Amino acid sequence: MNIVRAVRWSDDAQAVTIIDQRLLPGQFVERELRDLDAVCSAIRTLAVRGAPAIGVCAALGLVASLTALADVSTEELAAHARAAAATIRATRPTAVNLPWAMDRMLQRLDRALERHGPVIEALKQEADAILAEDRSMCARIAEFGEPLIPDGARVLTHCNAGALATAGMGTALAPLYRAAQSGKQITVFAGETRPLLQGSRLTAWELARANIPVTVVTDGMVGALMRRGAVDLCLVGADRIAANGDVANKIGTYAVAVLARHHGIPFYVAAPESTLDRRAPSGDAIVIEERSPDEVARPFGATMVADGASVWNPAFDITPAELITAIITDTGVVRPPYRWPAPDR
Amino acid sequence: MNIVRAVRWSDDAQAVTIIDQRLLPGQFVERELRDLDAVCSAIRTLAVRGAPAIGVCAALGLVASLTALADVSTEELAAHARAAAATIRATRPTAVNLPWAMDRMLQRLDRALERHGPVIEALKQEADAILAEDRSMCARIAEFGEPLIPDGARVLTHCNAGALATAGMGTALAPLYRAAQSGKQITVFAGETRPLLQGSRLTAWELARANIPVTVVTDGMVGALMRRGAVDLCLVGADRIAANGDVANKIGTYAVAVLARHHGIPFYVAAPESTLDRRAPSGDAIVIEERSPDEVARPFGATMVADGASVWNPAFDITPAELITAIITDTGVVRPPYRWPAPDR
Repeated sequence: MNIVRAVRWSDDAQAVTIIDQRLLPGQFVERELRDLDAVCSAIRTLAVRGAPAIGVCAALGLVASLTALADVSTEELAAHARAAAATIRATRPTAVNLPWAMDRMLQRLDRALERHGPVIEALKQEADAILAEDRSMCARIAEFGEPLIPDGARVLTHCNAGALATAGMGTALAPLYRAAQSGKQITVFAGETRPLLQGSRLTAWELARANIPVTVVTDGMVGALMRRGAVDLCLVGADRIAANGDVANKIGTYAVAVLARHHGIPFYVAAPESTLDRRAPSGDAIVIEERSPDEVARPFGATMVADGASVWNPAFDITPAELITAIITDTGVVRPPYRWPAPDR
Repeated sequence: MNIVRAVRWSDDAQAVTIIDQRLLPGQFVERELRDLDAVCSAIRTLAVRGAPAIGVCAALGLVASLTALADVSTEELAAHARAAAATIRATRPTAVNLPWAMDRMLQRLDRALERHGPVIEALKQEADAILAEDRSMCARIAEFGEPLIPDGARVLTHCNAGALATAGMGTALAPLYRAAQSGKQITVFAGETRPLLQGSRLTAWELARANIPVTVVTDGMVGALMRRGAVDLCLVGADRIAANGDVANKIGTYAVAVLARHHGIPFYVAAPESTLDRRAPSGDAIVIEERSPDEVARPFGATMVADGASVWNPAFDITPAELITAIITDTGVVRPPYRWPAPDR
């Protein structure tokens, strides 16, 4: 099965290779990011997106930015690494995986320096580990989620929580890829996901490439689709999960969950356990980012909203736990009432 | 209050004057349609849209197409009128108000010919009557609906059932204009209405022009908006109403109705009684037009869906009567179970 790889290491080029998601679905272009500028630009301009993919790209990108430095002292190399990490960290201030990945890389740097070991090799090992853990996280979500996908299932998803958002087979889409790999016939409905169209632009593209039948519907069509009896289950990702199981995810997710409940359709969330925010007792504690009105008012450059009108453009919404059938994580399937594994295990 | 006039007669120009809705909201351009080509082109290219507005434009347009004919015999005039009516009728095959308006104009032509009266004057009177009836229909919906709009109400609407769709103050928006005229402070949320964006492009524009505060939300944001407690009632139009009160309206309406029920928010439909299809016992009998995938896949010229993916693009959906609080018509407010006035009254 042809599951795309959004971010990987290219040994020949000593570079991070990413799929340039700004050009999808019209053009499939892979870019080799060989230096700090290229890495930062790719993250900043959303050529690479999705929290896990960004973290992996940042870690590998830090290595790429150092490999071009020939014949410099260990001290110079360490100074370069610290400066590069600071620059990469600042590309997207709200992406949690960015500081997480940079912290991890700098800790590894410190250990290598203490031990007088080779710096670049140590950092490459750490970046490889971050990538491998990400792929493994996706694969475990696939394993735990696959039994929930019946043969013949018609699955509705929203936004893109697929291979394009990770270094592996995705989060919400992982159980679907695994189901198809195991011979189940599944079909997917991809909700368009206005304003930025990640469902039509990205999810439909990566599923079509994997030869999984996929049909795009606009966000307003989801209700009519369910009323026709055309949806067997919903499966979406999560940006953050509160301790009580409330889920913050891309705007429009909550409406899908309400519609699923009205039609008696199971509604599943798939996300790594790292998405759990133990400090948020419920969704009420999660602050929702509101983005530029232009994303709604000026799609693709054309003005679609009169100057005298306002726009509300929240990036996420909260789906309360009572509308969620189960949450599929990389450690298992959890159902309400949510009792999470201890954090220090 | 500045309520736009989508279609009217210009005595000076002896022409139909319309607002060119293709250019909204970026440009406000009125066009004088002085001959048959201009009238047909305006209807065909959606410069004028909305079933009532199309019917009025067709009737007035038939008159405009004849006034340029100087010194022709009554027989020639009648032949011109019949040919023009056939041409106008064919511009949009599925718009019911088109054949209805043309039938009415030709019947009036026949009566004028029988009585040897002046043909153009008779046709102008009939077209004026069609326009006046349309404006009166809107005003009656406004009167019946206004008491349902509390002072301070925050109202969600979908698509455009406003002044731009009629010769008057609209259908779904009419009670809102009347409430504002009567001094009530109301605010409106306009659902964007993918794929063709009538909510953001048209509804927000005409309400902003009338100084009614309006905020655009994408279709996927409606649920989150309701969960915030930001919506007091929903008010939408209808393309067809079945005998049992099921309503066919622009795709996305059904999802709004389900979300309104989930949040305990009243959901009203406003439409002239002529929208009632007595031959359709329920919504199941209403055939839903499916439109070109390109409206979803290639919005504004840019390709947003991969070639290998499918698109489902129904133009309308069915909202079952049990989700509708009441239907506001030009003859009164009707509530379930629906017992309609006799058709022959």
